[in-house]
Parts: sequence; C-alpha cells; structure tokens
Amino acid sequence: MRISELAGATGVPVHTLKYYLREGLLMPGEVTSRTTADYGTVHVERVRLVRALIEQGGIGIAGVHAVLGALAAPPRSRHEFLGAAQAALPLPGSSDPMTPEVDDLVHELGWAIETGCPPARALGAAIRSAREGGVPLGHDELLAYAVPMHEVALLDLAKVDEVAATGGPSAALRLVVIGNVLLDPVLIALRRVAQEAASAAREKA
Amino acid sequence: MRISELAGATGVPVHTLKYYLREGLLMPGEVTSRTTADYGTVHVERVRLVRALIEQGGIGIAGVHAVLGALAAPPRSRHEFLGAAQAALPLPGSSDPMTPEVDDLVHELGWAIETGCPPARALGAAIRSAREGGVPLGHDELLAYAVPMHEVALLDLAKVDEVAATGGPSAALRLVVIGNVLLDPVLIALRRVAQEAASAAREKA
Repeated sequence: MRISELAGATGVPVHTLKYYLREGLLMPGEVTSRTTADYGTVHVERVRLVRALIEQGGIGIAGVHAVLGALAAPPRSRHEFLGAAQAALPLPGSSDPMTPEVDDLVHELGWAIETGCPPARALGAAIRSAREGGVPLGHDELLAYAVPMHEVALLDLAKVDEVAATGGPSAALRLVVIGNVLLDPVLIALRRVAQEAASAAREKA
Repeated sequence: MRISELAGATGVPVHTLKYYLREGLLMPGEVTSRTTADYGTVHVERVRLVRALIEQGGIGIAGVHAVLGALAAPPRSRHEFLGAAQAALPLPGSSDPMTPEVDDLVHELGWAIETGCPPARALGAAIRSAREGGVPLGHDELLAYAVPMHEVALLDLAKVDEVAATGGPSAALRLVVIGNVLLDPVLIALRRVAQEAASAAREKA
C-alpha cells in the first residue's frame, strides 16, 4: 500500500508517518519509484505500536527507540525479559539511591528481588514524592497496597507464559515491554472506575 | 522566611519559585519591602504539592490549576469528592465515547457506576490503545485485573474516610485529588517490583 493508504489504515496522518520514518521509528517501505514506496502489514503493526507507546504510554522518541531496540534483541529467559523491559523503559527515580524502607518492605513481603534493582529504587522515589505532596503513606498501607499489585503481577506473568508458549520468546518479550507500558493506563482507569463503584456502593448502604 | 530560604526548605530553586508565583500556582508572600516578601509553612506545603504534581504526577500547569481550584472549593459528600477529583484531573480518553464492552464489564462485576462516567470512558480508551499496541486483552483478563484494582480502591476509600474523620472535608478532598495522582506511580512501581519477585520465585521453583 502507498503511504496515504498506510495513513488510512492506521489513522495516523501522512506527515506524522514521515516524521516516524525520519526518526527511524518506522522502517522504510519498498521503493517503487522515485517518490513512492510500498508498505505492508509489518508497517501497519509498527505504526500502531509507536503511536500507542507515544500517546497512551506517554514515552518520548528516545523511549520508543529503547523499546524497539529491546524488541529486536530478545534475551533467553523470561526473567531476563523483565530486566530488559525494565531497562528499556525505566520508571522515574530508577537510579535514585535505594531506601532502607523499601528493603524492609520487600523483605517483610517475602519478595526475593535483587537489592537495589531499578524498580525498587523507583518505588522509593514514588513513595517520597507522594509523601512530599501530602499523602500520608505508612508502612502498613504500603504492605496493604502491595498485596493486590502482586496479584496483578501474577496475572502479568501468566499472560507472558501463555504468549511464550504459542508465539515464542520474541512475542513474549514484546508483551513484557508493551504490556508494562500499555496496561498501566488500563490499571489506573480500573482503579478510578472501582473507586466510583465502591463509593456508590457505600452511599447506598 | 525569605524566598531563598523557601528554596532551601523545599529544594526548589528560586527561579522556579518565581515561575510558580508568576503562574499563580504559589500565593504571594507577605510584602516586607519593595523587593522582599515573607513566606511561611503554607508556602512550603504548596511548593511541595505543586512540585509533586508536576514531577511525579506528570501533569502540566493547567492540571495543577485545576487541582488547586478543586482543593479551594470542597464539595460536601465523599462521593462528590470523587467526581470533583476526576473532573480536575481527567485521565486520557475521559471524553471518548462509552464502549459497550466497558458497560458489560462493569455490569458483570456488579459495579454500580453511572453509565458513561469519565473514568469508564477512559478505561475504554486505554483498552483500545493497549490492543492497538499489540497487547492481547480479552474479557476474562479484564475481569481478572479488575479484582485487585477493586481492592486498591477499597484501600483508597478507607484512607479517605480516616482523613475525613480527623481532618475534615477539605483534608479528605485534598487526599482524593492528590492520592489519585501521586499513588498511581507508587502502584505502578509496586507492580514492577512484584513482577521481579514473582519471576524470581518461579525461576527458583
């Protein structure tokens, strides 16, 4: 298909597609004449991925490059996938110093993670910011929130196993990277909807 | 204290404090001379809140204004708080059309929310984006993820009740608004840490 048809198929305007091409986020089509090129399904999928990462995932061009780089070089084990995914898209505060509080929390939860791994540092940074913004957040509350988020993580891993079994390691890596970025907004929206539901249920009670 | 001391107390540079003042995000200090003003605890708290909203919450100046506006006019019931908080900081896609899928999901979960409320629309938008980005996300998976996020919402509301009992309605509203924005990153980081933990536990098994 021509670039105008690629725009039609993805809903992304031609000038944005040209921008993706210039930035190396979209691979060139097969050249058919001096001014035209031919695009296929692989281009449609790539455009959708890039748009989802930028618009919903809220990551910049550098972040998209990091994700695409990670997808191009899948590691061997699922545990390495996680590391690659976390490295490709570090959360804010991932290189902050590790806080003793997070160490204690993780220990108390019985979570066997590497001390000082980037998500644990990011957790410390997020806790500090929340408190500075005026959210009272004690140790018991953090423990309480950790329980449902662990359930979420188990669902995440079950899905990765399923995809690995049918689509192989590169499909599984793709899911880990993209599932982290693109499911965050789904989880956040579920939290908000559930708040409405829980609040409505109490108003009635 | 002088503006330089306010900078020292909050870790926010003087030029950024002046920017907050110009944008109306920080209330003026008490004028003490033609070029100096006096700042107090209320200014320290405001600066910390604004910084947390911008840096960790990732919201722009307009979003901060909306939050501050909502905080200045607390509604009466907790259920109204939620509406005010959601309106002050709408999630992306909050005005997209309501999808029948989200209606079904909410119905199946027994969640009594208003049809077409902004978070439900945002949920539909987030689901669409995730799928477009290549995340397989079926009805059963959404139902499964909804369960832990409902537990999170119950913890959220319990905390609001607690704060309302001790600090009154305006403290409770503050918590609803700020707690939504500033706990999202904590939850996301907990999800990533829990993935590491769950993955490490399986590698060992």
